[in-house]
Amino acid sequence: MSDKITRVDLVNHIRHSLGLEPKSASTAQAGIINEAYVVATKTFNLPTELLSQKNKTAHLELLQQYIDSINNISAQLDAVDRGTANSNHSEYRSLKIDETYNLNAAFLHGLFFDNISDLRSQITMDSLTYMRLERDFGTFDSWQEDFIAAALSSRSGWALTVYNGFLDRYMNVVVDLQSLNIPINCYPVIVLDVWEHSYYRDYLNDKKTYVFAMMKELNWDVIEDRIKKADRLGKILKG
Amino acid sequence: MSDKITRVDLVNHIRHSLGLEPKSASTAQAGIINEAYVVATKTFNLPTELLSQKNKTAHLELLQQYIDSINNISAQLDAVDRGTANSNHSEYRSLKIDETYNLNAAFLHGLFFDNISDLRSQITMDSLTYMRLERDFGTFDSWQEDFIAAALSSRSGWALTVYNGFLDRYMNVVVDLQSLNIPINCYPVIVLDVWEHSYYRDYLNDKKTYVFAMMKELNWDVIEDRIKKADRLGKILKG
Amino acid sequence: MSDKITRVDLVNHIRHSLGLEPKSASTAQAGIINEAYVVATKTFNLPTELLSQKNKTAHLELLQQYIDSINNISAQLDAVDRGTANSNHSEYRSLKIDETYNLNAAFLHGLFFDNISDLRSQITMDSLTYMRLERDFGTFDSWQEDFIAAALSSRSGWALTVYNGFLDRYMNVVVDLQSLNIPINCYPVIVLDVWEHSYYRDYLNDKKTYVFAMMKELNWDVIEDRIKKADRLGKILKG
Amino acid sequence: MSDKITRVDLVNHIRHSLGLEPKSASTAQAGIINEAYVVATKTFNLPTELLSQKNKTAHLELLQQYIDSINNISAQLDAVDRGTANSNHSEYRSLKIDETYNLNAAFLHGLFFDNISDLRSQITMDSLTYMRLERDFGTFDSWQEDFIAAALSSRSGWALTVYNGFLDRYMNVVVDLQSLNIPINCYPVIVLDVWEHSYYRDYLNDKKTYVFAMMKELNWDVIEDRIKKADRLGKILKG
Repeated sequence: MSDKITRVDLVNHIRHSLGLEPKSASTAQAGIINEAYVVATKTFNLPTELLSQKNKTAHLELLQQYIDSINNISAQLDAVDRGTANSNHSEYRSLKIDETYNLNAAFLHGLFFDNISDLRSQITMDSLTYMRLERDFGTFDSWQEDFIAAALSSRSGWALTVYNGFLDRYMNVVVDLQSLNIPINCYPVIVLDVWEHSYYRDYLNDKKTYVFAMMKELNWDVIEDRIKKADRLGKILKG
Repeated sequence: MSDKITRVDLVNHIRHSLGLEPKSASTAQAGIINEAYVVATKTFNLPTELLSQKNKTAHLELLQQYIDSINNISAQLDAVDRGTANSNHSEYRSLKIDETYNLNAAFLHGLFFDNISDLRSQITMDSLTYMRLERDFGTFDSWQEDFIAAALSSRSGWALTVYNGFLDRYMNVVVDLQSLNIPINCYPVIVLDVWEHSYYRDYLNDKKTYVFAMMKELNWDVIEDRIKKADRLGKILKG
Repeated sequence: MSDKITRVDLVNHIRHSLGLEPKSASTAQAGIINEAYVVATKTFNLPTELLSQKNKTAHLELLQQYIDSINNISAQLDAVDRGTANSNHSEYRSLKIDETYNLNAAFLHGLFFDNISDLRSQITMDSLTYMRLERDFGTFDSWQEDFIAAALSSRSGWALTVYNGFLDRYMNVVVDLQSLNIPINCYPVIVLDVWEHSYYRDYLNDKKTYVFAMMKELNWDVIEDRIKKADRLGKILKG
Repeated sequence: MSDKITRVDLVNHIRHSLGLEPKSASTAQAGIINEAYVVATKTFNLPTELLSQKNKTAHLELLQQYIDSINNISAQLDAVDRGTANSNHSEYRSLKIDETYNLNAAFLHGLFFDNISDLRSQITMDSLTYMRLERDFGTFDSWQEDFIAAALSSRSGWALTVYNGFLDRYMNVVVDLQSLNIPINCYPVIVLDVWEHSYYRDYLNDKKTYVFAMMKELNWDVIEDRIKKADRLGKILKG
């Protein structure tokens, strides 16, 4: 598999296996996905010793399954009958609901793997991250306290710090599963997986210790880049 | 009520009524909400004759209730005990879940009222909107067909066209209620309310006719502005 | 359509239209559905003047759509590939999720239409209903207060008084949509539709007045029969 | 802790700790809970070697947390303000939603622990269970195939075989989390936990092997008793 796999390549691969025509070039152009989130096995370096190797391997397999599901759904959506779409039961509805479920699963996992496992994890007080969290949560410690509360409150889901483009501020979010309770127009900057699959192998039901462990190795450089982007997004949204 | 009501003013008003200290200035600075979505009764001009006046009035009242709920939740979140947060049942969890529910309700309603009811509704083929929808859906008609399918598939919720910042493309989304099935990192550009409260008074269970009616009066100027913003957001996210 | 339409008849009708073999006799035997809930147009007499005729007609149409959906899903489930079932996305999963959604929709609507619209509504203090509600809620008034609270708390869903077979007591339940937040092993005895489609035509967003109106005409005879059944169910469950 | 702990004892214990009056005697009478599901540590004998001891211990701790949550919620519900109940955000709504979540969690766990881990697991063809599953699924193998599909389709939840009191037949159910997608009026007879906490320690993401392992040791005697009860429930419901 080459380094630059586009979504359309994958979609067309599946379309082919389903006996469908390939996507048109115009759609193809647009469909390039950031391969960071697509080719999971190449992307994530997880040197952390706070998770076992078996846990990490299984987790990357799960990610691959979500990506396979997206591409499968995407290919089916091209061919689905839209004329029978309805809210009680229709193939279109089922595909759309699961499209969002698997998109979130794949992208949140990508963001998660990218922002953990930094063995030299360090945040400095003059970073934009520090200043923004302090601005919107009062103090950095308050952000931390709130984020831990969010992680402990999720039911097989995610704790997120997001930039809310409407409020023009950061907030923590409690996601259940992959797609319940997500605020619209939010850009995630800190992402923590709190599905049981992320901690049960190594921590059993001691979720709190897992949360602390992951927070000790947050990759603040990666987060700083996201915060800088969020700042620029904010300027456009306010403009 | 003055023209420029900030979220912090409202929050502090509620905090006061609960006997709490006002928010600190630093938090206050950041908390300014786009008043377009807050002061509902001043903002929305809905000349459409495809909805009855009673429907419109009731709908604006609902929006006001969501806004009141946000501010109430926001004030309670400042004082809630984070130490007891857990996923089975905790005040913190309940507030966070409902914070997202009401934030989405308020902002989606704001976006909805802003992008409907244009009596001279017109989209031109040289608009960015037209080109982007054509690029990502194949043709403008395909977007339309897909958007209608999404609207008919929602269970008391929303049909959205959003710019997905991870996929770098537009997609339609089927939301149930206010916060189920929302993809992360998406900027909404076309918003249609398909809760039953939006159409039952005037169309009973003929949801399809309601959907067509609203789509005939979409405000493409408002949408064009959003698409232009989305294009600029995309450049930053890709950068 | 004859008086005694079995589920299997309907299922086989759909199977036939899909080119499938009819169900085997042994399955057929078991599949008889209480036709009270299936043949909607024959069953429900709604003399109430607290709902408009247009509202009633539209509501019965919705019920018919749910029933059509069940039968459609049921037929598809017979033929679906179980070997590919998975939690990310599979036809099997989508069908099962929507099976429950539509089963609840159909049966709750049936129970609802059966227990409202009694113009001579009356509950006596020596009824089993009165005694049971008093036993488990303290007083009849407390039940009423709690039931109203439940109705006002639902998000496009249902307020139910159910006999909880595990707790061996009655409780009120707040259902969102058709299948969120339902306690297992519960027999519904009082059922109130609080989807917006049930009241928006006649009451707009004045949900409270609608709830009071329906409660004034509860059919306590129908409810008494259910409570008697619940009592007998309880004896078996405890045995 | 004595063998016969009533719900009211527990509730009053919590009420006392919250400074509330004890429940009145009349309510107390009714509130007896089957202690099988309440006093977890006394009830469940899990000799199976297909689950590790650490997994079992952690699982029983989770059950205890659900039970604590129920009792906590139940006590709070007694004192909550019903006058402010609403669907956007209210303490009453949050408590009711979580009441159902935790009730299901506790009772399903109880039923699960009771119907697994039978080292001499055996079903005979002349059992009522065998006949009923054959009747409603065509063959016993078809039930098995469908049950496995249901287990693999759940998103952190449950696979259930239930007697549906309205359909008068058995069906398999795919539950997400504790309270999503539950059909009303259903009595569970076979219960399999497929939250990740039930298998991740021992099977990582090989959910299928876990499902097969649990099904090899189903306690068919326990299930037979439930099926016999379900048969008697059915007679009453049809009567």
